[in-house]
Amino acid sequence: MVYQLYYWPTIPGRGEFVRLALEEAQAQYVDVARTRNGTRAMMKLMKEAATPSFAPPFLAAGDQVIGQTANILLFLGGAHGLAPRAQAGRLWVHQLQLTIADLVAEVHDTHHPISSSLYYEDQKKEAKKRAAAFLAERVPKYFEYFEGVLARVGKGGYLNGAKLTYADLSMFQVIEGLRYAFPKAMARIEPGYPRLAALRELVAARPNIAAYLASKRRIPFNEEGIFRHYPELDV
Amino acid sequence: MVYQLYYWPTIPGRGEFVRLALEEAQAQYVDVARTRNGTRAMMKLMKEAATPSFAPPFLAAGDQVIGQTANILLFLGGAHGLAPRAQAGRLWVHQLQLTIADLVAEVHDTHHPISSSLYYEDQKKEAKKRAAAFLAERVPKYFEYFEGVLARVGKGGYLNGAKLTYADLSMFQVIEGLRYAFPKAMARIEPGYPRLAALRELVAARPNIAAYLASKRRIPFNEEGIFRHYPELDV
Repeated sequence: MVYQLYYWPTIPGRGEFVRLALEEAQAQYVDVARTRNGTRAMMKLMKEAATPSFAPPFLAAGDQVIGQTANILLFLGGAHGLAPRAQAGRLWVHQLQLTIADLVAEVHDTHHPISSSLYYEDQKKEAKKRAAAFLAERVPKYFEYFEGVLARVGKGGYLNGAKLTYADLSMFQVIEGLRYAFPKAMARIEPGYPRLAALRELVAARPNIAAYLASKRRIPFNEEGIFRHYPELDV
Repeated sequence: MVYQLYYWPTIPGRGEFVRLALEEAQAQYVDVARTRNGTRAMMKLMKEAATPSFAPPFLAAGDQVIGQTANILLFLGGAHGLAPRAQAGRLWVHQLQLTIADLVAEVHDTHHPISSSLYYEDQKKEAKKRAAAFLAERVPKYFEYFEGVLARVGKGGYLNGAKLTYADLSMFQVIEGLRYAFPKAMARIEPGYPRLAALRELVAARPNIAAYLASKRRIPFNEEGIFRHYPELDV
């Protein structure tokens, strides 16, 4: 099976959570929008699939088209051993992923607190307020939660214990993204959460992930994506 | 099996999406935080469960504690016939639910665009801007998407065709909530989406749902929840 991943071609964004899972699993995939006329094909399939998507990313697996990042990972986790087989474990990992998704949505809103269709410059004043609250309250709250999960499961260092799941890959990406967007604030916040920092190292050191990160397939963070570095928001 | 639902006792909020599924399925459940000392029990289990939750709602099913609204519905959908049995259909309905969850998060941010820990009154100016953008752009975009899904699946009137799923129950709740929060704007917007209005009617007329809505178990919308009626935001 060769998957087709559909996501915006120039940003890591939400597509990156899917890419990391595909890369770790060494699944074969085409990153469609990065091919010729790929973005046009994406917009067409998004609307015309039997199961249309509200927004990218979505993944075609044969005839099936699956949308919503966490839902794609639920599918890939089952198909490629990136989640427990038993239902209870599968739901637990999905719960973690959905909590990560909530955090990611809050990251986006630090630079777009009023409207996605306005430029950042037109909501910069509000963005400063929202980013300050996000860094002071929300990041510590989420990190405390995930650090607690890591402390509870104990040995192994992954969120579900000894074995990596797609939620670990996503947590890695969130930490990378937050470091990119808010280097000063993260330098202050991160030392309080050593298990999360260790998880990031574990993921980065996995051979498939390390090879991917060093490749051209990995799109650098930039100011069009979810994790944006605006120095004035990094307080 | 008697489930224990854990959610804030005085608001419909995200717990209501779970309640609607439990009620439609005629599942037995205790709404724990609405019992004596229940909120204290909720806060304790939230942190101390083997699978802790970031926030309510969560559902105890025997020894298993499941968090994240859409994840609880994924579980209940499988256990009570509120979702297709085959994987492709199950993922499709979950995709719809996750898109509804995104919309619900945006509703919350209309009255809290800067920070959840500030009072509404302290972010009212920003709330007016965000609510205006939400009603002008986001509600029509989401409604167009779901109206398109209903048009595509055709006969039956439910999001997945002839048979009700938990996503229909959630869509009903979103429409009810938006009508409560933004009556003027919804009176203007809704006529453009007749299939969604018909879906709302179909769900409201289901015997188990109708009985539930008429009961004291149904918590009225209010200004502590996600869907709040602030006339100044209803433009």
